[in-house]
Amino acid sequence: MTIMENSKNKALQKAIDQLKGKTKLFPAQYYVDGILKGDISILSQAITLLESKSNDHRELADQLIRECLPHSGKAIRVGITGVPGVGKSTFIEAIGTYILENTDSKLAVLAIDPSSPISGGSILGDKTRMEKLSMDNRAFIRPSPSSESLGGVARKTRETMILCEAAGYNVIFIETVGVGQSETAVHQMTDFFLLLMLAGAGDQLQGIKRGIMEMCDALFITKADGDNKMNATRAKAEYTSALHFYPPKPSGWVPVVDICSSLDETGIDNVWNQIMKHHNWLSERGQLEVLRNQQDLDWMNDTLKERVLNAFFNSPEYLQKVVKIKDDLLQKKMTPFQAADLLFQAKKN
Amino acid sequence: MTIMENSKNKALQKAIDQLKGKTKLFPAQYYVDGILKGDISILSQAITLLESKSNDHRELADQLIRECLPHSGKAIRVGITGVPGVGKSTFIEAIGTYILENTDSKLAVLAIDPSSPISGGSILGDKTRMEKLSMDNRAFIRPSPSSESLGGVARKTRETMILCEAAGYNVIFIETVGVGQSETAVHQMTDFFLLLMLAGAGDQLQGIKRGIMEMCDALFITKADGDNKMNATRAKAEYTSALHFYPPKPSGWVPVVDICSSLDETGIDNVWNQIMKHHNWLSERGQLEVLRNQQDLDWMNDTLKERVLNAFFNSPEYLQKVVKIKDDLLQKKMTPFQAADLLFQAKKN
Repeated sequence: MTIMENSKNKALQKAIDQLKGKTKLFPAQYYVDGILKGDISILSQAITLLESKSNDHRELADQLIRECLPHSGKAIRVGITGVPGVGKSTFIEAIGTYILENTDSKLAVLAIDPSSPISGGSILGDKTRMEKLSMDNRAFIRPSPSSESLGGVARKTRETMILCEAAGYNVIFIETVGVGQSETAVHQMTDFFLLLMLAGAGDQLQGIKRGIMEMCDALFITKADGDNKMNATRAKAEYTSALHFYPPKPSGWVPVVDICSSLDETGIDNVWNQIMKHHNWLSERGQLEVLRNQQDLDWMNDTLKERVLNAFFNSPEYLQKVVKIKDDLLQKKMTPFQAADLLFQAKKN
Repeated sequence: MTIMENSKNKALQKAIDQLKGKTKLFPAQYYVDGILKGDISILSQAITLLESKSNDHRELADQLIRECLPHSGKAIRVGITGVPGVGKSTFIEAIGTYILENTDSKLAVLAIDPSSPISGGSILGDKTRMEKLSMDNRAFIRPSPSSESLGGVARKTRETMILCEAAGYNVIFIETVGVGQSETAVHQMTDFFLLLMLAGAGDQLQGIKRGIMEMCDALFITKADGDNKMNATRAKAEYTSALHFYPPKPSGWVPVVDICSSLDETGIDNVWNQIMKHHNWLSERGQLEVLRNQQDLDWMNDTLKERVLNAFFNSPEYLQKVVKIKDDLLQKKMTPFQAADLLFQAKKN
């Protein structure tokens, strides 16, 4: 798998390199038209643009997002989490296939995995495991942007989601690893938060924190097949009573606990039905709008923070002083505090 | 345990409330003198000060840190990580007791656990499990500051470490949960990074990412006792060969892989010996200074970022515009992008 990941990463890198150097950039309208027509190849190019670090690309990407925004927002946004080993990719393969076979929907699968090493992250490996899905032209699978901070990955995932929605994908899955802080980011940008758990492993070992259980709209116990089915059913009872202790959701929705098996393809339809039921629940109560408003505010704040920090750390005042002050700090002429203070004042005055 | 945690949290909250309102604040010199004398009660008060959100307390806390900084930096800083269930608290109890019995050291145990619910985090529960340590007056155990962002917790942990070092604690353990992004923060502020693993559970299930293995200076397999010892020995061989694939450390140090048992108290002395050996290794090669310089730079940057964001989000220009712009955003008169842009420009001009 490492070799396969490597070769995939090289392909990704090559695509980025091409963008940087040789490949001609088209005017924004070219990408927007392509996206709105649902052209997968142009959509991919546009996403690569917004993952690029070059300023030219960034400006173009910003323009694309602005133009695509009015065409976005109509998808069902689902966050999926669970520790490695819980079977997220086979689950996504199973439910994705179910959705494509039983509805007219188009499905995009994105990932947030900032701590992935150097490159593409787990879903790159997963893509080869999502064989059926990756061959269906109504499905679009995109790995996490490579080696970025959580903030960077979150922003780019949100932007990728907008482009996918504008391209007509009306079900968006955002996958994350279920053990760190990325859950909060995924929760912030989705409507339905699905937690996958294993039976028997115990939530301690699964590294699932109280905070994650508190966020979920549904908890499904995976691998409920063969000898494991009895354990899964027992776990269902345990988690159901555990979830009783959490405060109710603002929308009044009571989180669902149930079992499923990607292998036997049982209970998968139930997951989809719950997602739809929840979506209707929110819509009927005017809660979907409340949620989307909150998502917009979060997005505004994240964007603003990034701009403020970028402006500061690229300002001439900062750049002019930083070398000398770092030097003084390393020569113990001042404390990290005082150094930060001087740099802060430099720009301020 | 929940009840016990609750009552502990209440006690913590009460202490903070008292600081906010009734309790008289002393001049900085009072705290500094107390800390330098190693007075545990004054040290605790000072740490509560720096966890406070009040501006007065913050100013006083900043002053304390400035005054304590010249007396800090002489401790061995050890980061300890591993998923829940690996036995971190019993391990810390075992190695802490070993250190206190066999050396003159004073030990401080801190925690970084930003995703802990509402209050104190896991180590509050752990403290009751570190019975021996918590009764020894050469040990100081302090939970994570409550319900904070990772940035906030990291800053406060770093500051707490400075105060503890000034108070004469010359071994600092910083514990974290081993599944998220907090490892990077702990790695950034420590000299030695210890990864605890279980035998048999498989690194997949343990949620240990490649990135975390890459950071560790030693990997110890816990619970190597009774029937589990053979598994642990096998796991040792596996991890040894797995670690071969990682690039060497800048200092030339080769990460150690071994087994230990907190129950049988076997291999615990070895962990301590490795920590000391690594410390000498770094010192002899001038690498400890390189590391500490990097820690100072990271600290400067984190402090600066926080100040820049605080200054922006508390500026009259921002506060004056934000209500109206949020309103416009929610009425769909603009996109989150445009809203962020307007707010950013407001302060700029």
